[in-house]
Amino acid sequence: MALYVQKFGGTSVGSIERIEAVADKVILHKEQGHDLVVVLSAMSGETNRLIGLAKQIDDNPLPREMDVLVSTGEQVTIALLTMALAKRGCAARSYTGGQVKVLTDSVHTKARIRSIDESRMRADLDQGRVVVVAGFQGVDEHGNITTLGRGGSDTSAVALAAALKADECQIYTDVDGVYTTDPRVVDSARRLASITFEEMLEMASLGSKVLQIRAVEFAGKYSVPLRVLSSFKDGPGTLITLEDEDVMEQPVVSGIAFNRDEAKLTILGVADVPGVAAKILGLISGANLEVDMIIQNTAEDNTTDFTFTVHRNDYQQAKKLLDDSAAELGAREVIGDNSIAKVSLVGVGMRSHAGVAANMFKALADESINMQMISTSEIKISVVVAEKYLELAVRALHTAFGLDAEED
Amino acid sequence: MALYVQKFGGTSVGSIERIEAVADKVILHKEQGHDLVVVLSAMSGETNRLIGLAKQIDDNPLPREMDVLVSTGEQVTIALLTMALAKRGCAARSYTGGQVKVLTDSVHTKARIRSIDESRMRADLDQGRVVVVAGFQGVDEHGNITTLGRGGSDTSAVALAAALKADECQIYTDVDGVYTTDPRVVDSARRLASITFEEMLEMASLGSKVLQIRAVEFAGKYSVPLRVLSSFKDGPGTLITLEDEDVMEQPVVSGIAFNRDEAKLTILGVADVPGVAAKILGLISGANLEVDMIIQNTAEDNTTDFTFTVHRNDYQQAKKLLDDSAAELGAREVIGDNSIAKVSLVGVGMRSHAGVAANMFKALADESINMQMISTSEIKISVVVAEKYLELAVRALHTAFGLDAEED
Repeated sequence: MALYVQKFGGTSVGSIERIEAVADKVILHKEQGHDLVVVLSAMSGETNRLIGLAKQIDDNPLPREMDVLVSTGEQVTIALLTMALAKRGCAARSYTGGQVKVLTDSVHTKARIRSIDESRMRADLDQGRVVVVAGFQGVDEHGNITTLGRGGSDTSAVALAAALKADECQIYTDVDGVYTTDPRVVDSARRLASITFEEMLEMASLGSKVLQIRAVEFAGKYSVPLRVLSSFKDGPGTLITLEDEDVMEQPVVSGIAFNRDEAKLTILGVADVPGVAAKILGLISGANLEVDMIIQNTAEDNTTDFTFTVHRNDYQQAKKLLDDSAAELGAREVIGDNSIAKVSLVGVGMRSHAGVAANMFKALADESINMQMISTSEIKISVVVAEKYLELAVRALHTAFGLDAEED
Repeated sequence: MALYVQKFGGTSVGSIERIEAVADKVILHKEQGHDLVVVLSAMSGETNRLIGLAKQIDDNPLPREMDVLVSTGEQVTIALLTMALAKRGCAARSYTGGQVKVLTDSVHTKARIRSIDESRMRADLDQGRVVVVAGFQGVDEHGNITTLGRGGSDTSAVALAAALKADECQIYTDVDGVYTTDPRVVDSARRLASITFEEMLEMASLGSKVLQIRAVEFAGKYSVPLRVLSSFKDGPGTLITLEDEDVMEQPVVSGIAFNRDEAKLTILGVADVPGVAAKILGLISGANLEVDMIIQNTAEDNTTDFTFTVHRNDYQQAKKLLDDSAAELGAREVIGDNSIAKVSLVGVGMRSHAGVAANMFKALADESINMQMISTSEIKISVVVAEKYLELAVRALHTAFGLDAEED
């Protein structure tokens, strides 16, 4: 008998029929003798519908009120699933984020979880109830409703699993696991039986939309075993675990991630003196925008060019911030590019294998794909290319690193 | 400078445009220097949409989860109005029932308010903010979400006004006041400038759907001046106040209420001994159904007939309860009628005027309308007639008691 936290995303609860299918699935696991905490997203489309209402009133609505508004989406699904469980004779109870005291900071629409009070859930589990919790939401210390930002339901699930010391946190989604790369781009992509937190972190942060990056971070930090499974078909999914000790057995490259959601900004000709980079990034982070890659080349003539990438949705705002401050920063010019893509090789095995970067760059060069930016970590190599070359680059690398599934 | 609690119903916030119109109206009053607490219902249709989702899962969904579900309706409107106020430069903050601790009992879907913590609202008002509160909802002592039942937003508004010692509780609705009777039935119906709590209580309980009865009770109990106004056109509305001291000046009959929402049940031939009536009503109240009129005639042959009315929606359930218990109650038969209507004369002035009942019965007899049940209180006389005679009865009484508006 184990304790599982099971999270179902918006597509999995996208209609009454699907909510009833989730109820059946939950009861199946319950009848196997497991204790279950179920975390839900809003019905697919509902969050966007609510945001649409807000945008009719104000393009830039109050963040505190956005949280009051959009948190209703999950509140609807937890009530409906709990009704469906009860209808089937399964004792269950629903809770909003606030009711189980998912305490967060006060950064509305992008809050971070500080703690969870598991006592109430524990009491329900002890009485044999399935506990159904609204993902994505919490409360700050003043009792204001907060949300964790898009995809935050995964983070909620992992945080609940950590607080409850669950045996596994199972993320049910519309894909049946983590693949070597996106099967829609590369036909021969393969499902991975397991992957390390580190690799998954790189895969997630680089745009494999299976799991939210913060959820993986959380899971790694608290050693919560995480499994990605399909809501719609049976199968073992992909288990995300602590680093495999037998690194020698691992393939050099586990997968290829990519991301079309970024945009690139370059500040040309700023003074090459200490503090300039901090000033530039301070502008961006002060507006609560997130930066991904950061590149600065060796200086010439005492000036340097500073390049970074932001989420494409934040591009206009970031560009305006830089344009407004260009004079103050002493910059010659601010340029940007909205049509880029990032492609990354990920693999723990890279650490012990030289030459991965060389092979990567050669594979791209063979297809005449120009690399605009390069960034590396211990277990990944990322390059930015023009968006139009993305599919070609991913397919070329998938083959070059031996990831293609074997023909039957 | 006064403190007003202003409540806007579902029709008044039924679209983004209407929510923006409410924001404009609120700001107008704010600019006149008043402190404002705004109480909102869900957008019209939204509560029914949510109930529809639940009914797809279970005809008889868990009451606790119904409250979790439907309370999202008001949460959406408070966020949207607060955004609209902010967009117009008016500082505002929204609160769910739970956030301002509208503490209720634990009778889900029909909870009653016990207390309200006004401190948080007071702090906002002191800082010049408009406070926007979700009507219809609260929390029980365990933090479970509760709702007050249909129309409960009026009750929320009055309870908030009482807790805050507001100068006036203003109920904005789709009518511009309380009328002598329904203008859709009687062309010559007139708006009343004022009416006493007692009269309003009788009018509300008898089916004038302007205000929820519990709201009027609450207002009377805590002496909260209540005003009914139109959301859509300007005007003074109708003020509901403590009893006018100058009763002599009042007309004998203030208005004529009517109600098509009831059904009648009669238990024939039960023993005329103490305890039988209590047993019958115990059955009904035990199922949380509400009873309106109760009539028992003088006994013959040691048996009696016991008749009462329930809400038409509860008719089938009440009928089944009685049928199942008929043998145990020693009843000969249980009969019911679903197509009745109740018509009532209401007026504080009745107290000091004999002959009102006689005039009423004569006016109905002149139209050959048979009275099935009669019930009286100090300030009202109600009769039950066949539903098909309702309009005729109301018009005849409106004329007979001199309520018709004078021709211009």
